[in-house]
Amino acid sequence: MNFQETDFNLTTYLNEKHNRINNALDKILQDCKNSSQIVKAMRYSLMAGGKRIRPVVCMAAAEAVGSDCEVALPAACALEMIHAYSLIHDDLPAMDDDDLRRGKPTCHVAFDEATAILAGDALLTLAFHVLSTATHTKESQVSSIWLNIIQIIALAAGCKGMIEGQMRDISSEGTLLSLNDLENMHALKTGALIEASILSGAILGNGNPEQIEHLGIYGKNLGLAFQVTDDILNVEGDPAIMGKAAGTDKNRKKSTYPSLLGLNKSKDFAKNIINNALQAIESFDNKADPLRAIATYVLKRKK
Amino acid sequence: MNFQETDFNLTTYLNEKHNRINNALDKILQDCKNSSQIVKAMRYSLMAGGKRIRPVVCMAAAEAVGSDCEVALPAACALEMIHAYSLIHDDLPAMDDDDLRRGKPTCHVAFDEATAILAGDALLTLAFHVLSTATHTKESQVSSIWLNIIQIIALAAGCKGMIEGQMRDISSEGTLLSLNDLENMHALKTGALIEASILSGAILGNGNPEQIEHLGIYGKNLGLAFQVTDDILNVEGDPAIMGKAAGTDKNRKKSTYPSLLGLNKSKDFAKNIINNALQAIESFDNKADPLRAIATYVLKRKK
Repeated sequence: MNFQETDFNLTTYLNEKHNRINNALDKILQDCKNSSQIVKAMRYSLMAGGKRIRPVVCMAAAEAVGSDCEVALPAACALEMIHAYSLIHDDLPAMDDDDLRRGKPTCHVAFDEATAILAGDALLTLAFHVLSTATHTKESQVSSIWLNIIQIIALAAGCKGMIEGQMRDISSEGTLLSLNDLENMHALKTGALIEASILSGAILGNGNPEQIEHLGIYGKNLGLAFQVTDDILNVEGDPAIMGKAAGTDKNRKKSTYPSLLGLNKSKDFAKNIINNALQAIESFDNKADPLRAIATYVLKRKK
Repeated sequence: MNFQETDFNLTTYLNEKHNRINNALDKILQDCKNSSQIVKAMRYSLMAGGKRIRPVVCMAAAEAVGSDCEVALPAACALEMIHAYSLIHDDLPAMDDDDLRRGKPTCHVAFDEATAILAGDALLTLAFHVLSTATHTKESQVSSIWLNIIQIIALAAGCKGMIEGQMRDISSEGTLLSLNDLENMHALKTGALIEASILSGAILGNGNPEQIEHLGIYGKNLGLAFQVTDDILNVEGDPAIMGKAAGTDKNRKKSTYPSLLGLNKSKDFAKNIINNALQAIESFDNKADPLRAIATYVLKRKK
């Protein structure tokens, strides 16, 4: 099935999902003490907008296997909190030293470094708290499934996943990586958590093993494509649309797909991976249309 | 029952528990990729010694309710990893800016700031991974119990517990706190995780609700006493024995028990709280002797 032939409206879909996710995140933060400086900083970064790609694909994966996306909502929220914490810490002076994120001052600029470090720690911790209390929501999965979800997410976010990727990213600044090393780094830094988002949704939605496997392949390719297009946008993106500076990779002498392959070959590469992602879910019916549309969106995104 | 009347040997007990905990932590780190810079930094801080008070009381609580302490080992390890991460982040230049910890350079001095931030993040994440895979160990508790343990630990370590305490500690430097505010801050910063350690052990050991309640009171008092004696040691402790500098609270104009109450009244206060802790577990048999001995040790500790 070719996605372009359907009349699925991604904008409407994303708006609906964003509302649902933002409401849930808002409620989670309200359950913390709102007067605290820490919670203010957590809210500042978590509610600063963003594409919500991880929670959206998590919920879309639950739908793709035939479930209501509500069953994946706690995981979706936890994944976005983990993503938000990773951005806060990545932006710190000792790390990427970025002042601007999503068009707003980064957390340590808006507050201070100590608050930003603690707000990141608190978002990461809260993510696991949300996952551990997910059985309290109605029509939730059983405890053993949630324990499995915590395992998948902790593995993807930890020293065998996202954190190792960020470490490699920082250590490799100024050195020329091979294409293989670059791909491995991105598979860890970005790919692992996006793949975990899709797997979590598929498992919470009671997908069968074959479906989960296919969605895993979709997720792996989507995550990689996301990073390739991120590199491309850093070269030719519009800072006003992106809400962050362009050209920063070059300034930092980072190895990127455009720097290793050139712009055109990088775009071809992104197309190929997105095709792989689409092929992996070819056997799914139109309940997987959101995932198809998201894959196409990743290729064409301007921010 | 008066503890002094028993022939329980705390040193032997602690050595045995330390070995068990250190072996388990070592195995957890071995399961990560050892060649990575991140894992080196995690190991550097996690295996730097320390009193292991949280994992020890966690396991001792499981024993106090009549179980083998092995059932609490994954929680004990996770609690020590969370404690280690909090020390790494607290020592950062943007936070307490400490160069020395347990007689060794702090993590960001031995490595660098970025690595220290990420190593802390990774230890926190790994703690939840360990908890989520604990059902795989033999004779483990069921999934719903482990989910409950994750909830208790995440709550104690997060923005309603330890992190909020650290935030208050940093923000209150240079201002005079009331005794009440000081106690609340410490209850969050140190008390919450120590109490969670004891509750986790008691729950994993299948304690009944009354036992769990009593052990919770013991834990609350032990945590507070631990902080009061920490403040006292910061005034009159020997840096060579403590492995860290003394007098730092005064230099930072921190409100402490000695600064608010004076040294002698602080010592009386510590004695009173430890008595409360001992009274809370009065109805327990000699299987709670380790907890009794630990309470007495906290009062007399030199480091």
